[in-house]
Amino acid sequence: MTPLYEGKAKRLWATSDPNVLRMEFKNDATAFNGEKKASFEDKGRLNNAISTLIYGMLEKEGVPTHFVRQIDETNVEVRKVEILMVEVIVRNLAAGSFCKRTGVEEGREFSRPIVEFSIKSDELGDPLVNDDYIRELDLASEADLAFLREAALKVNEILIRFFGECGLKLVDFKLEFGRLAEDPSQIVLADEISPDGCRLWDLKTGEKMDKDRFRRDLGNVMEAYAEVLDRVKKATGA
Amino acid sequence: MTPLYEGKAKRLWATSDPNVLRMEFKNDATAFNGEKKASFEDKGRLNNAISTLIYGMLEKEGVPTHFVRQIDETNVEVRKVEILMVEVIVRNLAAGSFCKRTGVEEGREFSRPIVEFSIKSDELGDPLVNDDYIRELDLASEADLAFLREAALKVNEILIRFFGECGLKLVDFKLEFGRLAEDPSQIVLADEISPDGCRLWDLKTGEKMDKDRFRRDLGNVMEAYAEVLDRVKKATGA
Repeated sequence: MTPLYEGKAKRLWATSDPNVLRMEFKNDATAFNGEKKASFEDKGRLNNAISTLIYGMLEKEGVPTHFVRQIDETNVEVRKVEILMVEVIVRNLAAGSFCKRTGVEEGREFSRPIVEFSIKSDELGDPLVNDDYIRELDLASEADLAFLREAALKVNEILIRFFGECGLKLVDFKLEFGRLAEDPSQIVLADEISPDGCRLWDLKTGEKMDKDRFRRDLGNVMEAYAEVLDRVKKATGA
Repeated sequence: MTPLYEGKAKRLWATSDPNVLRMEFKNDATAFNGEKKASFEDKGRLNNAISTLIYGMLEKEGVPTHFVRQIDETNVEVRKVEILMVEVIVRNLAAGSFCKRTGVEEGREFSRPIVEFSIKSDELGDPLVNDDYIRELDLASEADLAFLREAALKVNEILIRFFGECGLKLVDFKLEFGRLAEDPSQIVLADEISPDGCRLWDLKTGEKMDKDRFRRDLGNVMEAYAEVLDRVKKATGA
């Protein structure tokens, strides 16, 4: 069997239901647009567990997602979607590419969250674009963008509170959305939410608890992910 | 005497009037954020002549600018402004950094003009940003951005028509704006409008008549600028 799709950190497989796919979390880690690569034992399991609990929590909060159910340690069932080629990034504090682009020091707190869109393209390096670009590239309609912006800000509010209960500061995160195969008029949250795509800092120590440990060779990468899972479990009562 | 400011292509000098500066056009040319440098005899004169005629034309069309009067071949008087640290780029066809960023081929015509903002910073390489970035970096207010967008689109309409009369297609261009020293509530068009900051293609042959001749080593750089000046002179009746 071959997967329908293989990305940097996940594979998608067909199931007997044409509207449902199996999403497999891999142990592979990449950074800097795939230039830095590694594999971490247990990463797939940890990210799947964290993402599953967060998607369950978001669904309870009224956010529609692609999530159906967890199958096993590294696999979930998700509703089939056509992924929008626009990635949505929400930033509460300056970090990562924001700092590189603007020269602002890491950690500056924003007065309001920053929402940004980038083209989902490994080849192009997921470049930041503005709404006019997205219109002319026909990546999403203006109404879609308004929906994405609002949905992302709502998810941000929920996640700030949730991670706050986990003793974690939500610095920034990336979301992907997709149109349901069974009803393309409906856009739902897709992909995953894990320390791979969220910057999370320990509220007390400021310690980085996310993929920056891998990007910056800070060590104890999986220990941090496991700690995040522990706290997410406690916060969700799992 | 030392200039009040020296940029890559111009110098600003004080005059006896505190609200008026002398702007001197240099012969220096730079590209790729200053990595490529050259000097072209006559460039200062040509750009000054082109920009002076265009600013006169824009003023007649009701666009407020910093322009006061031409002093000599390479110098003009301009009203003193505080330059906004936001550059405004308008694109009618895909070219330059748009193509690099998106992978779109040069020359694709857009359904509507694209307006984009970048941080005016040689150090950072004038990076593209969105409105949220500008708000958080305090580079301009939301009202300022709405004004800049509208003003840039109006200038675009006027310039498309004007360069059309010159047998030139306006591919894209960069504008800078500033707050009048004597009345900071008033934002006016500043800097220059010349083949340094506009992409202009001959309507019949498609030939590049702008700084891309320098960027891409196409030769006949000043010949193209001189041809643009000739056509601008004819179109303005100068």
